[in-house]
Amino acid sequence: MRKIVGSVLLLAFLLVSVVFINGALAQETSELVGSEEEVYYMVTFNSGVNYWKDVYAGFEEAGNLYSVNTEYTGAIQQDVGEATTVLEQVIARNPDGIALSVIDPSAYHEPINRAIEKGIPIVTFDSDAPDSDRYSFLGTGNYEAGQLAAEKFAERINNKGEVGIVTTIGPTNIGNRVAGFVDKIESDYPEIEIVQIGNGGTNSMAASNTAASLIRSNPDLKGIYCTWADMSIGTVNAVREAGKIDDIKIATFDTDEVTLDAIKAGEIEMTIAQGTYNMGYWSLQFLYHVNNNLANPVANWKENNVNPLPEYVDTGATAVTIENVDAFYKK
Amino acid sequence: MRKIVGSVLLLAFLLVSVVFINGALAQETSELVGSEEEVYYMVTFNSGVNYWKDVYAGFEEAGNLYSVNTEYTGAIQQDVGEATTVLEQVIARNPDGIALSVIDPSAYHEPINRAIEKGIPIVTFDSDAPDSDRYSFLGTGNYEAGQLAAEKFAERINNKGEVGIVTTIGPTNIGNRVAGFVDKIESDYPEIEIVQIGNGGTNSMAASNTAASLIRSNPDLKGIYCTWADMSIGTVNAVREAGKIDDIKIATFDTDEVTLDAIKAGEIEMTIAQGTYNMGYWSLQFLYHVNNNLANPVANWKENNVNPLPEYVDTGATAVTIENVDAFYKK
Repeated sequence: MRKIVGSVLLLAFLLVSVVFINGALAQETSELVGSEEEVYYMVTFNSGVNYWKDVYAGFEEAGNLYSVNTEYTGAIQQDVGEATTVLEQVIARNPDGIALSVIDPSAYHEPINRAIEKGIPIVTFDSDAPDSDRYSFLGTGNYEAGQLAAEKFAERINNKGEVGIVTTIGPTNIGNRVAGFVDKIESDYPEIEIVQIGNGGTNSMAASNTAASLIRSNPDLKGIYCTWADMSIGTVNAVREAGKIDDIKIATFDTDEVTLDAIKAGEIEMTIAQGTYNMGYWSLQFLYHVNNNLANPVANWKENNVNPLPEYVDTGATAVTIENVDAFYKK
Repeated sequence: MRKIVGSVLLLAFLLVSVVFINGALAQETSELVGSEEEVYYMVTFNSGVNYWKDVYAGFEEAGNLYSVNTEYTGAIQQDVGEATTVLEQVIARNPDGIALSVIDPSAYHEPINRAIEKGIPIVTFDSDAPDSDRYSFLGTGNYEAGQLAAEKFAERINNKGEVGIVTTIGPTNIGNRVAGFVDKIESDYPEIEIVQIGNGGTNSMAASNTAASLIRSNPDLKGIYCTWADMSIGTVNAVREAGKIDDIKIATFDTDEVTLDAIKAGEIEMTIAQGTYNMGYWSLQFLYHVNNNLANPVANWKENNVNPLPEYVDTGATAVTIENVDAFYKK
């Protein structure tokens, strides 16, 4: 009896040991398995808007892959003071990494550089602080996205005819969407003529007026290229009021529900989806690799002023049309 | 006695079971642990040159992290026929992914697109086939690297004086190194004057002649910016022969041993290191994530013509000077 009890106790002891050792081994299996204490933050402004949801979906999914924690926070308003205060609060928690979207680069330099100095990896996404010490920027290559829009839109108007543009004058990213589009059309599509680049102001009402005037001045217009959602909302109204919804095709940017619905209704021909999921997904990976000393392009990269990460990631763009629009509705 | 034997047998059986179950669990721990059968190829041309070694070091290191196999191969010559034959041989082995550097994009389109169609993920690195179906390109942003060269070189010549350029006219990547440099100097450094852009041909001998003429025509020259190693080898000779090695500072690209030694000797002031390790490291990661259906920006991305990966990665550039040159020698 004693022997059996002894054997059972020994058995239990060995089982526990084996489970314990194997548990430790499982932890050691891969440097790509993070620790439960690791926390990575994604920090934005206008934090409630839908646009960020898809970015955070990618960030969170990558966090799950690495078995680390992710948190989302940001300024409620598009307010530099509030946004940098939120950033300071996050830095104070000493997280393992921060993915940050920036309103006004200059206001962010000091806290970004201080956090990097302190050993907190930072990458920017969607909008950058290029002169700070952040390791990488992940965002849409707007010039290239404009080129893609040109190619795909040309296809939809049979590579010929008059095209107008309704855009906002000023912001660099929007300007690049125009430049990429115009350059591509001019170099590759001799039978497409860009007849006018209209300033659609900063809201759908102004855009509607601009589009109406564009339509009046160019009776043979085959298409209008809009550079963001408010431009195309206004343009759709103007085209509808002019009774030309079957004659003039519209291209735009972004995948908000209004735009996707308009594609399904046949009022907008195509839109360019930005690589929002990719921004979050690869931001987390970059931060994880630096935080765990895996990204190591040169020995002692810190001391030798070498950036451990790629400088820039163009997260890409996709043409969305009636054929694939369903995949872009948020679940 | 029988009971003890029974207990010991039971014990042994349970131990084996626990080890087996825990082994299986360890396999399941992370989707970032690959399988032993996974093989990823890196494919180049001029396959023996040192330049690729650092790229493959990153590729192999990332392969080790994911516990997958990596292989390196490529055409021995810079020969399109040989290079595409090697690519076909790799495709025939049906690997889990291919990172490919391209000589002549058009010759690669058909095999790249066929492999993608077949389900083999392909990314390009260092030199691209932009009109193929490859998922991503990872390489140096040469325009941005030229801008970095301008900033760092300006610092080393106290932000003033006459500067000449010795470059090869023709290749886009080299042209962008000049454009980024010139644009940055013209916009940010009013006291630096670019006096001449000299065509250094395609070898160090021609570059030496060009540099000699540049030095003769501009007796107050403070610096010469060279766009690749052969240009600076020739330029160093010309400056030395003119007896001006202490008066004229030289900037260049790449981190071959000759260039690094010249920096140590004080004959070259600085060079721009490309992010070669990053090219390999992140190429493998991109391929792994696609091959294992982890990169998933949109549901059913294949059917919906969505690129599962970022379009482009600028793998970055680093200024190498006497202060950090030691870190760049290959081990």
